[in-house]
Amino acid sequence: MLHDPAQLDLMFQALAVPARRQMVDRLSRGPASVSQLAKPLAMSLSAVVQHPNLLEASGLVRTQKIGRVRTCQIERKALRAAEHWINERRLSWERRLDRRGDFLAES
Amino acid sequence: MLHDPAQLDLMFQALAVPARRQMVDRLSRGPASVSQLAKPLAMSLSAVVQHPNLLEASGLVRTQKIGRVRTCQIERKALRAAEHWINERRLSWERRLDRRGDFLAES
Repeated sequence: MLHDPAQLDLMFQALAVPARRQMVDRLSRGPASVSQLAKPLAMSLSAVVQHPNLLEASGLVRTQKIGRVRTCQIERKALRAAEHWINERRLSWERRLDRRGDFLAES
Repeated sequence: MLHDPAQLDLMFQALAVPARRQMVDRLSRGPASVSQLAKPLAMSLSAVVQHPNLLEASGLVRTQKIGRVRTCQIERKALRAAEHWINERRLSWERRLDRRGDFLAES
């Protein structure tokens, strides 16, 4: 599912907005509630809430609601799938440079 | 410049559309003209042209016009910058799992 083109669309869209990258960055250090994610952002809580929703729809984050608190957590495999897509293309290009002996010239 | 948040916005936006990922994928195997990039896509050339423009604006691709032909080429350092942003967050999360001994449980 994580290599599904539609899912990749959502993951890259999710990462294309600074507030959401800031949330992913915060979550990479440990789970956090939506209010904790909102705190460093200059936004109202109601404006912030759309971002965890989009992150969850993309698969990059999963959330769990216990009582009134929604806790967000990184979904490592989804991060890896997005990273992997880019990595494969970069390596393909670098192998080509290498075969042609252009690597140093291009660097 | 490639770690500039605005540039990261543009790079992830560029990757969030299947036609543009298909172009990056094609370019990872070698430079190509805009017409060559257009060929496998079910789009008119005029509809396709916006995509290399956006890829170039994001920094992921550079183009060079010789006569009437515009040739596109991967910008390896930009691909690496986008990949690196994701990689750092994934590793941060994995180090955390590792410290807590949760790695196997979460995998």
